[in-house]
Amino acid sequence: MLENHDLLKEYRKSIDNIDAALVFLLAERFRITRKVGFYKKEHDLPPGDPEREEQQIARLKELSKTADLDPEFSRKFLKFITEEVIRHHQRIRDYS
Amino acid sequence: MLENHDLLKEYRKSIDNIDAALVFLLAERFRITRKVGFYKKEHDLPPGDPEREEQQIARLKELSKTADLDPEFSRKFLKFITEEVIRHHQRIRDYS
Repeated sequence: MLENHDLLKEYRKSIDNIDAALVFLLAERFRITRKVGFYKKEHDLPPGDPEREEQQIARLKELSKTADLDPEFSRKFLKFITEEVIRHHQRIRDYS
Repeated sequence: MLENHDLLKEYRKSIDNIDAALVFLLAERFRITRKVGFYKKEHDLPPGDPEREEQQIARLKELSKTADLDPEFSRKFLKFITEEVIRHHQRIRDYS
């Protein structure tokens, strides 16, 4: 007999809602980093900023503890996002 | 003369706020996928579900268009998260 998996469907509905929220937050984040990219180009600043990234990692690790999220995952997550942002900044610098 | 970069600081303040929101949303998402992991173990379901993942990717790509986010980035983002989730599910299956 096939199981209904109603509880699994319930969990997945919540995951889908959270993912939608994540997409819209990420979109807003890239709207801002796009402005940062143009600002950096205008002021001749490099696309990446290791000191700022260090501060962000430290801050997110602290927040992760409060949220009960694996701090190492937060670090990887920020790295994943930052690599995309730096690619955008390079494109802005080179082609805009 | 050193520049103040006040505008850059403003942008970064917004980015920091968004990152905090992302951390707490991700923490909530992992709270739910953890329950999914136990559910799957209990019902002898595999840690990954390619059909579900296909549906998630298609849905996030649609949402990305509305949000003006690169759909390809959304796909990579979901893949990044899902890989972590599957690792968690495997751990739950093997050690819980």
